[in-house]
Amino acid sequence: MPYNQSMSLISEIFEQPERIKGLLSSQRKYVEKIAAEIKKRDIQYVFLAARGTSDNAGRYANYLLGALNGLPLALATPSLFTYYKQPPKLRSALVIGISQSGKSPDIVSVLEEGRRQGCSTLAITNDPASPLAGASDFVLDVQAGPEKAVAATKTYTSELAAVAMLSVALNGKQKQWDELSKVAGWMKEALKQNDFIAGAVQRYRYIDQTVVLGRGFNYATAFEWALKMKELTYIIAEPYSSADFAHGPIAMVESGYPVFAVAVKGKVFGSMLQMLHRLREDISAELVVISNDKKALSLAQVPLTIPADVPEWLSPLVSILPAQLFAYHLTRAKGYNTESPRSIRKVTETR
Amino acid sequence: MPYNQSMSLISEIFEQPERIKGLLSSQRKYVEKIAAEIKKRDIQYVFLAARGTSDNAGRYANYLLGALNGLPLALATPSLFTYYKQPPKLRSALVIGISQSGKSPDIVSVLEEGRRQGCSTLAITNDPASPLAGASDFVLDVQAGPEKAVAATKTYTSELAAVAMLSVALNGKQKQWDELSKVAGWMKEALKQNDFIAGAVQRYRYIDQTVVLGRGFNYATAFEWALKMKELTYIIAEPYSSADFAHGPIAMVESGYPVFAVAVKGKVFGSMLQMLHRLREDISAELVVISNDKKALSLAQVPLTIPADVPEWLSPLVSILPAQLFAYHLTRAKGYNTESPRSIRKVTETR
Repeated sequence: MPYNQSMSLISEIFEQPERIKGLLSSQRKYVEKIAAEIKKRDIQYVFLAARGTSDNAGRYANYLLGALNGLPLALATPSLFTYYKQPPKLRSALVIGISQSGKSPDIVSVLEEGRRQGCSTLAITNDPASPLAGASDFVLDVQAGPEKAVAATKTYTSELAAVAMLSVALNGKQKQWDELSKVAGWMKEALKQNDFIAGAVQRYRYIDQTVVLGRGFNYATAFEWALKMKELTYIIAEPYSSADFAHGPIAMVESGYPVFAVAVKGKVFGSMLQMLHRLREDISAELVVISNDKKALSLAQVPLTIPADVPEWLSPLVSILPAQLFAYHLTRAKGYNTESPRSIRKVTETR
Repeated sequence: MPYNQSMSLISEIFEQPERIKGLLSSQRKYVEKIAAEIKKRDIQYVFLAARGTSDNAGRYANYLLGALNGLPLALATPSLFTYYKQPPKLRSALVIGISQSGKSPDIVSVLEEGRRQGCSTLAITNDPASPLAGASDFVLDVQAGPEKAVAATKTYTSELAAVAMLSVALNGKQKQWDELSKVAGWMKEALKQNDFIAGAVQRYRYIDQTVVLGRGFNYATAFEWALKMKELTYIIAEPYSSADFAHGPIAMVESGYPVFAVAVKGKVFGSMLQMLHRLREDISAELVVISNDKKALSLAQVPLTIPADVPEWLSPLVSILPAQLFAYHLTRAKGYNTESPRSIRKVTETR
């Protein structure tokens, strides 16, 4: 590891492959037990509450549980439970709360209400002794270990892995467990670009805004990359699905405007590639692209690669790593504090 | 009207009170009929598909149908229906599509799949002869008339009004119909600030980025204000709930940074006011505030008012009007085309 151990953020980024490996081996049996219990009940949809980084894990769950498990997912609007005190009727819902700390009162409120209404409730958290865990029937401990840096990295990928394990356990397909077991190796490959990224970010020392595009499973990655950019580098970075982007916001892109994109091979790749061509050739935008496809990477001023054989459904666990390194190194290039950004706290207790 | 009639955008902004009045009087009976049919079925939640401006009407529906009707709402991820061809199982869902043109193939796909699965389907559209209408059991024609400007304004408020009518019809409370009938008058009041706003925007001639805050019912207003800013003025304007904003992105706000906020009296007002105090007093941010509360308005460099007696649940129909005028006049101040912004088309056919 090229940096001092007192630098938590970079250490935590590099810890991710081992954490995912550990989670898979220690929690698989328990997740299968949760899945078996859930399957006994007549679940019609998932109602999910989360904020910040965990909300991006929720975005991944939206695609994964939809595509692999046929489960529609509603993202909770916690203020209906707290300020308005008019929670919706959650009949037949599986209520899931995702929170690293398990302490945000508004997320806890949603789980408490779910339990009050007789729904099955599941907490996905890094603290099995937290209030969120206490309010839930099932607790999936993501076992990421203490996260010292304010910007969440390893708890994010651990939450994604927990969601993936739940989805696979509900399906019961051995092939998917086998693919999951390869994630740690793919992550290690992606982290090898650390030195390259430390150099590549220099070009962006003076950007103050960007948009981040992703679609399908990697819609979550676009949101999480953008969030790390905002938290750490203080630039305004707005995430979009390429489809929504074409509905208006593309108007603001001029020649040289920096656009970050996650374009992983799979079902939505063609639509992402089309957008990248339009941005590069018609508008002369500047592109930073995370991909495992040569065509997409060749359109980028800065290409960031992930292994070619990562399946799309698991790619968010890998594609976020170059994005985390990019945000980390750009923070250093701009001369900011990577460990505790101004104005934010590790645990934000929103109501 | 102070501008030439060939300027569609400003005409369409000013048309809104009459359009809402017309919609209420002509469609109430039909919406009550739709509501009666829907109530006969065992609807457990709403599954809603929309993009762009219509997606913001969907955000309003999320709070309104939740708070007033106890209906959870899941926002569709259309790519699961189109690219992935793995739509979730929509048992017991009311499937709603909102689209001005009714032509976006991905939104139509969601409604077609809903019908195939035997769900009740409802189109909210400005074109009752559109493919979206053709794919739906019920069609709520928002009757906004032809919208010539590329940036949607009157179709947005007509979609909000349609959603409000549906919610009230499901509740059957006369008091709520009475409040709805006052919206057109409140809108007219808000539009009286046109000349003031034309002057006030001059201060922002050179901004190139902003964030837009709202919460609860006016979370939708923050998104729609931001979208108009991006489409028309080409500045990067990112919408947030004040809760999510406190979870990280607030780190990027420095002294003088322009923050737009919608802080209407009601259940979440206290939390919005607290955020405004923090932004103004701790960080010295620059504030443009839409409100009907003197305390909130007094914190703003540019206060934009809506009538004091607008109830929170209907306030998004009124609070968006000063925001539309702000975006319109800033576009003129920046010397851009208000009628057809670069790079976007009126009908975006995403798949």
